[in-house]
Amino acid sequence: MTGSTSSSDSTHSPWQLARRCERMNPSVIREILKLTELPGVRSLAGGLPSADTFPVEAMRDAAMKVLTDTPREALQYAASEGFGPLRDWVSAMLAAKGVDAPANRVLITNGSQQGLDLVGKVMLDAGNTVAVETPTYLGALQAFNPNEPKFASVAGDDDGPLPEGIGALPQGTRFMYVLPNFQNPTGRVIPAARRDALVAAAQRANIPLVEDNPYGELWYDDEPPKPLASRWAEGTLYLGSFSKVLAPGLRLGFMVCPQTLYPKLLQSKQAADLHTGSFSQRVVHEVIKNGFLDQHIPTIRDRYRTQRDAMDAALKASMPAGCEWKKPSGGMFFWLRLPAGCDAMALLPKAVEAGVAYVPGAAFYADHPDTRTMRLSFVTLPPADIADAVQRLGNVIQAHLATNA
Amino acid sequence: MTGSTSSSDSTHSPWQLARRCERMNPSVIREILKLTELPGVRSLAGGLPSADTFPVEAMRDAAMKVLTDTPREALQYAASEGFGPLRDWVSAMLAAKGVDAPANRVLITNGSQQGLDLVGKVMLDAGNTVAVETPTYLGALQAFNPNEPKFASVAGDDDGPLPEGIGALPQGTRFMYVLPNFQNPTGRVIPAARRDALVAAAQRANIPLVEDNPYGELWYDDEPPKPLASRWAEGTLYLGSFSKVLAPGLRLGFMVCPQTLYPKLLQSKQAADLHTGSFSQRVVHEVIKNGFLDQHIPTIRDRYRTQRDAMDAALKASMPAGCEWKKPSGGMFFWLRLPAGCDAMALLPKAVEAGVAYVPGAAFYADHPDTRTMRLSFVTLPPADIADAVQRLGNVIQAHLATNA
Repeated sequence: MTGSTSSSDSTHSPWQLARRCERMNPSVIREILKLTELPGVRSLAGGLPSADTFPVEAMRDAAMKVLTDTPREALQYAASEGFGPLRDWVSAMLAAKGVDAPANRVLITNGSQQGLDLVGKVMLDAGNTVAVETPTYLGALQAFNPNEPKFASVAGDDDGPLPEGIGALPQGTRFMYVLPNFQNPTGRVIPAARRDALVAAAQRANIPLVEDNPYGELWYDDEPPKPLASRWAEGTLYLGSFSKVLAPGLRLGFMVCPQTLYPKLLQSKQAADLHTGSFSQRVVHEVIKNGFLDQHIPTIRDRYRTQRDAMDAALKASMPAGCEWKKPSGGMFFWLRLPAGCDAMALLPKAVEAGVAYVPGAAFYADHPDTRTMRLSFVTLPPADIADAVQRLGNVIQAHLATNA
Repeated sequence: MTGSTSSSDSTHSPWQLARRCERMNPSVIREILKLTELPGVRSLAGGLPSADTFPVEAMRDAAMKVLTDTPREALQYAASEGFGPLRDWVSAMLAAKGVDAPANRVLITNGSQQGLDLVGKVMLDAGNTVAVETPTYLGALQAFNPNEPKFASVAGDDDGPLPEGIGALPQGTRFMYVLPNFQNPTGRVIPAARRDALVAAAQRANIPLVEDNPYGELWYDDEPPKPLASRWAEGTLYLGSFSKVLAPGLRLGFMVCPQTLYPKLLQSKQAADLHTGSFSQRVVHEVIKNGFLDQHIPTIRDRYRTQRDAMDAALKASMPAGCEWKKPSGGMFFWLRLPAGCDAMALLPKAVEAGVAYVPGAAFYADHPDTRTMRLSFVTLPPADIADAVQRLGNVIQAHLATNA
């Protein structure tokens, strides 16, 4: 081989990073998850569904059937739009929720995370404003960030973002990202009246909505109100997922796109990875096509309701005065606010030392983080471990308060 | 529901597209593939591997084993980097080709197409120059386009791009994209001496290389020379795929990243879709872990060699004087150049009418397309159908030449 070797000198690396890389950062959650793999740490940090809920038998039967009946189709290149019968299934499932989602506007994605990536690509130029809740889903901030937008945080209360906040957004705001059901991280659900008011405010401001609904089926008290997309069909892009009702490792989600955006979202999907895996799509369709989820989801709800109740009881038993939380009516998370003088990030090393981990809430804010907050997942550990972990956490907070009193 | 209805007036659509959408267009190939689904059309257009090569039994056994032995891990969220044992396998496979690819620099992707998407995201700002061959892989142009780069086409000959073309690239060119083995669309392989010269020129210009190698195992005469990455480890990013040696419908590929880029590529992958499907990764690893490909790939080579020879014979028998092609020594495509006065795009409707389809070559050029070229795939149809299709194509060209003589 010929050639100079100047390039092997790291000061002359030939690689240059795009400007957008400045806004890419290691996921706080994934970094924390590494910590929590230490032996003896009970983790309330991750958003991992309980593996006990995965329908292994049904998946095995379906994989067998797909690879016996249609192996060539399952292993061959396929349409970028997704597997036709799966798109039909999504369409029918959403029609039952009042959402007009014809199959020709359904796009199958690698989890709803990819839907967020495509939404950002197709709608955000550098410097554009995208409105988000505060706090909001960290993964959405990460998905939009490569397009270098400005984030505008819309203030909210226990019922979700405030309609007047939407009215005050800058003109030209590209869209508002909303997670109406059992939000990650706060667990709150937006009531029907607030949904109406939000949609009305968005229509007045002519700001469309990107509605993310990974947790909607995980309700433990009452079924949540109908989606925003059922209230403003042409102004709402809807994202869904099979991660929380079947299994996340398949990476299977979907989006229902406004007609004006569908061609560009589809071309963006083609350019990103040609199509979502045919085998996974066909296996999932085989599992769910005859009403399997109607039987399966209630078993998940029963399990997670018990775990939620265990965490609520444990918090009541272990948290010192001044800690605030609301018992969520669905989803996977409690959102805990510590007394004044506490910083959830600063407390984390002590908590891990005491054998419990969580995600500091600051990671979920586009700006002005509330550093007293933390997210606690109740779906990964069984009730006894939840009680033990929350007790350890309570002790750490108590000790901190006592020291700083 | 409240609210104005101005938004239902399509002239007041709330949705706005990002500027980059102007550069997204329907894939010519996918549009043509739709044409070729018409009954009676023999398609030489698509790059679909023969489904007869898919190892269905092995896949079924592996899926069973994975869902029996490690169902929870296969269905749960997993690391963005990819499945550890699969990364180790890639590392060892590449070491045997002289490429230094430690597993901690291997990233598993949704096909190598996603690798191209991530490369563009991490390295291309709007207006940056990216160098490509001319013609080049259409999917790479589509993957890079959302980042709004300028393309600089590097002139080439039958041995690949010319080293002096690399020397003449604008300063600051972010990288050159090269497909050294049995290029899509031309089928040419870059000989060892040209590889050395290209790497030397790239080193002198301090322009790194993105090496795409989906077809390297599909050689029918001689094994191709060692990868560019074996010649310039720190200046080459390498992309590979399981699509052509196992099955494309799984969407499984990998990239070997320079150390300086790995963290940003990983964060970009996290933001794009969290991780590649765990189940698919584990099934593929289960299939290949004990040397399966050493037995399997030679059977693919035997099949495709026969088909390649059939197409070469058919072209010799059916093409009028003035048509030019080289018999490729691997891959999936012949690159045919028609006599002066022919336009491959204009001829396509007549060809489809005559029952044969192809991809006009113009789609594969970033600029200055040679409109006399077309790409013919020999892997999808059996030899008898190839002969028939090529004969029909010859007749169409002959008739056109006769009419315009």
